[in-house]
Amino acid sequence: MNIHGRHYRTLWLKPDDPEVVQIIDQRHLPFSLVIEELRTVAETAVAIRDMHARGAGLIGALAGYGMYLAALEARSGSEAAFMDRVTVSGAALKATRPTAVNLEWAVTRQLTALDRVRGSNADRVAVARRLAAEIADEDAAHCKKIGEHGVALINAITARKPGEIVNVLTHCNAGWLAFVDYGTATAPIYAAHDRGVKVHVWVDETRPRNQGARLTAWELGQHGVPHTVIADNAGGHLMQHGLVDLVITGADRVTYTGDAANKIGTYLKALAARDNGVPFYVALPSSTFDWVMTDGVNQIPVEQRDPDEVRVIDGWADGRVQAVRLTPEGSAAANYGFDVTPARLVTGLITERGVCAASAEAVLSLYPERRPAPAGADAAQES
Amino acid sequence: MNIHGRHYRTLWLKPDDPEVVQIIDQRHLPFSLVIEELRTVAETAVAIRDMHARGAGLIGALAGYGMYLAALEARSGSEAAFMDRVTVSGAALKATRPTAVNLEWAVTRQLTALDRVRGSNADRVAVARRLAAEIADEDAAHCKKIGEHGVALINAITARKPGEIVNVLTHCNAGWLAFVDYGTATAPIYAAHDRGVKVHVWVDETRPRNQGARLTAWELGQHGVPHTVIADNAGGHLMQHGLVDLVITGADRVTYTGDAANKIGTYLKALAARDNGVPFYVALPSSTFDWVMTDGVNQIPVEQRDPDEVRVIDGWADGRVQAVRLTPEGSAAANYGFDVTPARLVTGLITERGVCAASAEAVLSLYPERRPAPAGADAAQES
Repeated sequence: MNIHGRHYRTLWLKPDDPEVVQIIDQRHLPFSLVIEELRTVAETAVAIRDMHARGAGLIGALAGYGMYLAALEARSGSEAAFMDRVTVSGAALKATRPTAVNLEWAVTRQLTALDRVRGSNADRVAVARRLAAEIADEDAAHCKKIGEHGVALINAITARKPGEIVNVLTHCNAGWLAFVDYGTATAPIYAAHDRGVKVHVWVDETRPRNQGARLTAWELGQHGVPHTVIADNAGGHLMQHGLVDLVITGADRVTYTGDAANKIGTYLKALAARDNGVPFYVALPSSTFDWVMTDGVNQIPVEQRDPDEVRVIDGWADGRVQAVRLTPEGSAAANYGFDVTPARLVTGLITERGVCAASAEAVLSLYPERRPAPAGADAAQES
Repeated sequence: MNIHGRHYRTLWLKPDDPEVVQIIDQRHLPFSLVIEELRTVAETAVAIRDMHARGAGLIGALAGYGMYLAALEARSGSEAAFMDRVTVSGAALKATRPTAVNLEWAVTRQLTALDRVRGSNADRVAVARRLAAEIADEDAAHCKKIGEHGVALINAITARKPGEIVNVLTHCNAGWLAFVDYGTATAPIYAAHDRGVKVHVWVDETRPRNQGARLTAWELGQHGVPHTVIADNAGGHLMQHGLVDLVITGADRVTYTGDAANKIGTYLKALAARDNGVPFYVALPSSTFDWVMTDGVNQIPVEQRDPDEVRVIDGWADGRVQAVRLTPEGSAAANYGFDVTPARLVTGLITERGVCAASAEAVLSLYPERRPAPAGADAAQES
């Protein structure tokens, strides 16, 4: 999408040095646009852990490129040691953010591909580079499709109240900054806006790191989409009073049974949506599905982050980013990164293959290749 | 309660000049303790509107003293003009915070008392001063009783899991800083803590003005009660994982049918409590009841405040309070002050007369003097 009228993705190889990965360092947004260069796996791990780059799809794509950097680092060693070295690098990348499934998915995809290479380390580097680009391109393509499928939900609301504004509430940033391009929760919004539908977005500020206030508000503003930043506390009141037509959030991991882990606070919005009859959708590319877990609330690990993210906040003053402390000295703080919204509260999932119910049956109908072989098949062979 | 070991209330008459009201200017907490002097109704209205003093009980008590200042201002005029002048002052005070019922209640109580005085303006001033003190003393006494009734709820949890910590979640500040002393939501917590019960408080930071992070955390810390500040988004996750035994909040207005207006975001916690079988109590003195309204969600006016309270936040840096901007330039923000939790989500009300269900029947059983005369009584007289 565009920044100051120029098209960007959230990560790319440096044009004049393709052994360097460049990312938008999102810690500085919306106050300034800083491009960071990553030359090592260690730098990539820090960039993911400390959220220079964040968001389900972007973390996956960056882990893909991180594995390319891992391959570059392993290149000079023996061919026998290559897989051991990149496996260690992959483990380091996976450990940075335990909740996000895309991270694990991208690392595993690279390791599997590299393990299959019957050639030199240079061949392995070439494979890793090609696959990193493929993961990023796929992410962008999937987000574009999510927009095309999701816009039907917004169109249906417009059809019910022609000419009126459609109010969408979103939590955190599942915009293009969280992916390679387009975003997931924002993709239907951008698609509707670009087709002339009057859409307005309630942007949850998303404490403690304010991805809504800082990133979602900024990217919607850059694209000209009307939006209003609200405290995370406000959504229930808005829904009680008919001021929200639709909730769309992203997700960091969704079980194939429909339980959705997303930024802490999402579950509270899902409860309010249910209590007020507001449709609640989760937008995700299939890379965000967990095809093993069946009970998101009890099985998805929820990351606990540094309590100082609650105690101290960054903002803009006197022409620079400044950190100010919000809590009394001596008060403890806790910082849970995610919560899990049970499938029973999710109206539907918006994927690159279409919109479906948040149930194993519906998800597996869209992704039949993921359906376990019927038990009878094995039994027949055994008997 | 104590600050640095010395007992304070939140407001008092200046010892050497009883025509001046002194308050703790809460805008500076927890970073510094500033005492403000109020000499006029106009200054009092600003102090309420701009939240130098805030919280259901304190606003009522301060409005009581504001009417005493109004009486002082009207004293020099004619006796005939006195009631007109103080009525105008009362209207100005009432207009500062539309949601809080205590404000209206205290002003009306003063106007009614003043209207009954058959004497000089000096007599009226004396009545206003006495009544202001009475309102403040009543508030403190009611909060103390709320603590005595509410501690039974905490004791019941301790009885179920002896020796284990009881985790209470609260939203906003319904502590002693929001009243004259003791607080409402905090009163049972202080009472339990003082009796040696192991109690720990999850303190919602309470965006946008962070009364939890700034005031509740500070006053609990001053009293030595273990507590942890969390983002407002975290409560649902904590409840899903059994980390909350009890929710207690205060309220700014509660219909006698049990609908509770409190700081924005309270409704979301009530939904999460219901979804996870966690008891959700609202603590209030009877001055916070609205004895007329029956449908809180649709009838209680919800104040919209300055959007800059969402866009800009105060914190501590470089030895002083500093304001930093959180949102992109050009992004709109909205700032709803309260939401209403419907009675169906409230496990019970903790009042100075005891704990009761959130229903007209239960509330009127505790306050039988508020029960409307049976329709038959009038009919009998008419026939």
